[in-house]
Amino acid sequence: MIVVMKPNVNEEREAQLIEWLKGMNLGVHVSRGEFQTVLGLVGDTSKVDMELIESLDIVDSVKRVSETFKFCNRKFHPDDTLVKIGNVTVGGGHFVLMAGPCSVENEEQIVTVAKAVKASGADILRGGAFKPRTSPYDFQGLKGEGLELLKLARKETGLPIVSEIMSVQDLPLFEDIDVLQVGARNMQNFDLLKELGRTDKPVLLKRGLANTLKELLMSAEYIMASGNENVILCERGIRTFSDYTRNTLDLSAVPMLHELTHLPVVVDPSHSTGMARLVPPMSLAAAASGADGLIIEVHNDPIHALCDGAQSLRPEEFDTLVKKIRKVREAVR
Amino acid sequence: MIVVMKPNVNEEREAQLIEWLKGMNLGVHVSRGEFQTVLGLVGDTSKVDMELIESLDIVDSVKRVSETFKFCNRKFHPDDTLVKIGNVTVGGGHFVLMAGPCSVENEEQIVTVAKAVKASGADILRGGAFKPRTSPYDFQGLKGEGLELLKLARKETGLPIVSEIMSVQDLPLFEDIDVLQVGARNMQNFDLLKELGRTDKPVLLKRGLANTLKELLMSAEYIMASGNENVILCERGIRTFSDYTRNTLDLSAVPMLHELTHLPVVVDPSHSTGMARLVPPMSLAAAASGADGLIIEVHNDPIHALCDGAQSLRPEEFDTLVKKIRKVREAVR
Amino acid sequence: MIVVMKPNVNEEREAQLIEWLKGMNLGVHVSRGEFQTVLGLVGDTSKVDMELIESLDIVDSVKRVSETFKFCNRKFHPDDTLVKIGNVTVGGGHFVLMAGPCSVENEEQIVTVAKAVKASGADILRGGAFKPRTSPYDFQGLKGEGLELLKLARKETGLPIVSEIMSVQDLPLFEDIDVLQVGARNMQNFDLLKELGRTDKPVLLKRGLANTLKELLMSAEYIMASGNENVILCERGIRTFSDYTRNTLDLSAVPMLHELTHLPVVVDPSHSTGMARLVPPMSLAAAASGADGLIIEVHNDPIHALCDGAQSLRPEEFDTLVKKIRKVREAVR
Amino acid sequence: MIVVMKPNVNEEREAQLIEWLKGMNLGVHVSRGEFQTVLGLVGDTSKVDMELIESLDIVDSVKRVSETFKFCNRKFHPDDTLVKIGNVTVGGGHFVLMAGPCSVENEEQIVTVAKAVKASGADILRGGAFKPRTSPYDFQGLKGEGLELLKLARKETGLPIVSEIMSVQDLPLFEDIDVLQVGARNMQNFDLLKELGRTDKPVLLKRGLANTLKELLMSAEYIMASGNENVILCERGIRTFSDYTRNTLDLSAVPMLHELTHLPVVVDPSHSTGMARLVPPMSLAAAASGADGLIIEVHNDPIHALCDGAQSLRPEEFDTLVKKIRKVREAVR
Repeated sequence: MIVVMKPNVNEEREAQLIEWLKGMNLGVHVSRGEFQTVLGLVGDTSKVDMELIESLDIVDSVKRVSETFKFCNRKFHPDDTLVKIGNVTVGGGHFVLMAGPCSVENEEQIVTVAKAVKASGADILRGGAFKPRTSPYDFQGLKGEGLELLKLARKETGLPIVSEIMSVQDLPLFEDIDVLQVGARNMQNFDLLKELGRTDKPVLLKRGLANTLKELLMSAEYIMASGNENVILCERGIRTFSDYTRNTLDLSAVPMLHELTHLPVVVDPSHSTGMARLVPPMSLAAAASGADGLIIEVHNDPIHALCDGAQSLRPEEFDTLVKKIRKVREAVR
Repeated sequence: MIVVMKPNVNEEREAQLIEWLKGMNLGVHVSRGEFQTVLGLVGDTSKVDMELIESLDIVDSVKRVSETFKFCNRKFHPDDTLVKIGNVTVGGGHFVLMAGPCSVENEEQIVTVAKAVKASGADILRGGAFKPRTSPYDFQGLKGEGLELLKLARKETGLPIVSEIMSVQDLPLFEDIDVLQVGARNMQNFDLLKELGRTDKPVLLKRGLANTLKELLMSAEYIMASGNENVILCERGIRTFSDYTRNTLDLSAVPMLHELTHLPVVVDPSHSTGMARLVPPMSLAAAASGADGLIIEVHNDPIHALCDGAQSLRPEEFDTLVKKIRKVREAVR
Repeated sequence: MIVVMKPNVNEEREAQLIEWLKGMNLGVHVSRGEFQTVLGLVGDTSKVDMELIESLDIVDSVKRVSETFKFCNRKFHPDDTLVKIGNVTVGGGHFVLMAGPCSVENEEQIVTVAKAVKASGADILRGGAFKPRTSPYDFQGLKGEGLELLKLARKETGLPIVSEIMSVQDLPLFEDIDVLQVGARNMQNFDLLKELGRTDKPVLLKRGLANTLKELLMSAEYIMASGNENVILCERGIRTFSDYTRNTLDLSAVPMLHELTHLPVVVDPSHSTGMARLVPPMSLAAAASGADGLIIEVHNDPIHALCDGAQSLRPEEFDTLVKKIRKVREAVR
Repeated sequence: MIVVMKPNVNEEREAQLIEWLKGMNLGVHVSRGEFQTVLGLVGDTSKVDMELIESLDIVDSVKRVSETFKFCNRKFHPDDTLVKIGNVTVGGGHFVLMAGPCSVENEEQIVTVAKAVKASGADILRGGAFKPRTSPYDFQGLKGEGLELLKLARKETGLPIVSEIMSVQDLPLFEDIDVLQVGARNMQNFDLLKELGRTDKPVLLKRGLANTLKELLMSAEYIMASGNENVILCERGIRTFSDYTRNTLDLSAVPMLHELTHLPVVVDPSHSTGMARLVPPMSLAAAASGADGLIIEVHNDPIHALCDGAQSLRPEEFDTLVKKIRKVREAVR
């Protein structure tokens, strides 16, 4: 850790800081430049509160030299992580297509959509059973019943299933679910992350609306530090001042995350844009940016079918899109 | 609910939409203007998915006439809610000062700070026992032991205590804590909110870093709809591109929330700015904006004491500040 | 224009508002729903101050039915605009590659880079002569001399040239420049926009760091309403809380703008990311999203050449990238 | 300037960088820590492109030790700057109240409002003659005629006048205007800033919607480096995801700017919130935060008068507010 002092700091106060640091069993190398002094801290700096030191009025800035994320850091694990979900592999050049309805509604719906997306080439079926809704008065999902319907659809199609878990208490219900999704709102629900780290199930971790890449990686680190290294990261749009789209899809996160971590990175073009007609171009863009997969909403119910424009694609739109995605994947290989 | 159609919509598709709406047991009043058609929906529109309708390509916009938040809505409850915490009352002109260290560290620390802030006029002692930290390697708080130390400090001073709860599973440990704080990262941890709604304890609900006022109110609604009306809202800064302060304190939220809701609104100037030297001016500004209280970090440990500038105030700085806050409160009354 | 009144508005005040609107020579159609009243305004509403009406406490919201942008609106001009720059056409399926150094430095540099990018397939040479710099102490560009060097490079290679204009006063110097670029900071320099609207030169209009798509279109409208319809829009990243990239490239703006306007939309992956190693994936993603072109920084000076990672690509990296871009273009056609 | 190298950098490339830096006539002090190397640069680093160096893949970060802003930097000029406008002084404990209508409309309006705000204690009359409008179809102000009407109002009341200048070309029209306002959209119109720096008139420089404090200070530096030190900074709200207010007033900018610079800092509560009913609480909060003044919209035309809620205060509301502002000023002194 490096502490850059402000210019012309009172010597006595600098000495007090150095004493305090030494009191934490750290070696302190003092390097005096013409203008300022830099303290190099040696030893176990993981317990040092960077923010506290940075906030001192004699300190200009603090830099960690050793990265704060370890398990998910590409520096310490240069090869891509491959996450196995049944017969499906994600990462390391293996592209995964997850598709299905926003919410599981009934058997006919989920089985019909599952068959359709499988026929188009989807690898994994998605479907929400526990729905995080801004309003307590909005539909909260079929919960346990929804998970049972997903399993039925898996039985019919052989597709592994991914569904969102919102609470540690629901974990027993997810025992037979293939991939556990952590939604954007729960990205920093650290108790949930730790508990998921104690399972061996693949976790699809969505980036929060206002979270930095570093925070996303630290949340992955919570899961991995608890023992589960099967983490798939998901970019799903950040909150900005945008006037047309619901959120702003940050595709530069894909290559940036690939540089920082060995974990697979998938993209959710449906929730980020909130408009079905933006899903195809953003899916193609995500594939071109190097994403390891996509998670796309596909529906087949009548109101969606009668009017374009909802967030979900119709099965035939998905089918057309998948063909183009494959071409883009080939083009950028 | 009002659905404003786009100009020159295909009649057949408009008819299909109207049929679908009627199929949901809604009355549909069609009002045709020179340019566009407006549908007025009558009946129980709470189950109608506004976002779905808004996303249809024949629809320009959708407006709820009946507000989506009910329990916390000032329209249906014009008088200020008074939240009682022991002998302390918050809201309706009663200003509350919550103060204490960021984290509970040991008995001496918490008792010393508690006595100091009480002497300066604090009404409630704050102190973190469960700490939500971005990194799994950072100090996570003394947990249950920290709560016990808070109770000791309460016994010594008589000050009620407020502390953050991060998980439903920890609820039994908080049985004897006076105010349960929901942190910014958990503002949309809906399972936690529902569970807190089943208690009768006052809840201090902090606004998330990227959450709108409406979302904050809907989260309060989760608690209240579950039966607990003792909710105190807290503005603590939002995430922006700001280069100097950690977050951007949004003080206009104070009068705006007072217009929208009858719940008390307090301000946290410590976390929003991240710098002790900004706490006094922002505390005074919050008081001037009409806040119902402040929650301020105060410490007494040596490293803080030896160098200014950390996020926490020293007891003597807090003392000076309290006197000025009282003067500002009088000035704006 | 539609004015949605709040529920239960005082009748007298509603009548005063209607009177005032009629006094502006507008027809007012009153449509009373069960819950609320909607006023439909007929006549020339372009002079009506929407914000003023929206801010009235008896009004819930105001919607324009007739769009505020006309010249650039795809509704009134369904076919793609083709902008001609010498022999180059942009828009309507014609993809344009603009490339060159951030700043023009000297004859050798600009001619060398121009030849290199031409050999790789660039259509237009870019190069900054007037540089908008945050600091007055930073290099402000070679100005007129830089423009002369660009013309020399054009003479050597035949490539048309694009360069940024910062001020109306510099317009005479740009007489022989092929495309005038308006930078992000000047997107709402309305006097400059109006003046460019009085020329017949193609204008490359960059989106401001915190500007919505509607604001970008209104700025294009300033140019077009003054008589110049040769406008190319450019997405170059918006300011967010992002921790790794300089700005956040908003690629969903590309399909969204294509829906809203007939003007060509190009993407600048260099300035938005600020890192050369993110330029290739973001260029490919932009091409996949349907962009009509790219503007990419390419350099050949030694410091860049010796160390990777700057914002600009080396000529050989650009060459490799162009080949991939062509493949992606074919894949998504 | 300090360059912190990444850990385990290739020695040859590090040597190349050091050579290149020395080639720019800089002394390079190499300080090797256990983990990383820090280069201390001595000499005239103002020409060094920090961003370029920071983007190199062997570099972790770059810090300037000498601040990039000089003229406006409190370190080099500890005493508050006092800006004189006629008999009015701003800064250093002198609080200034600027008030008046958003736009100058006609003689009666501007004179009436001017008299009213003077009677309430305003020091300076504000009024827009050149109006930057998002749409070319919106009212662009009375321009030169508006400035003449402002002068008439000044003659009637003795109040100095402040009005926005949008373009260098309009400068001759502003010869007899007391304070030249640079609007948020023009904060980085560097040609305009330089030109204003060549006058001796006080400049009211508004912070851009997405500009950091450092960028605001660098824009002030443009004016001051050109010779005019009479700069007043103005916080007027930043663009965020906020759902109720137009922009988010960033009051923490006030004490932060006071720490960084000696220039006076005023606050515009009218444009930031966009709602008259938020102007009083935000004005009081601004005064409590230590602002050196306020610029407030006051109107007296009938539509405003008949319905509350617009952005501007009525004269009687302004009068009440001024009394409270004075009390808050006393409370925080």
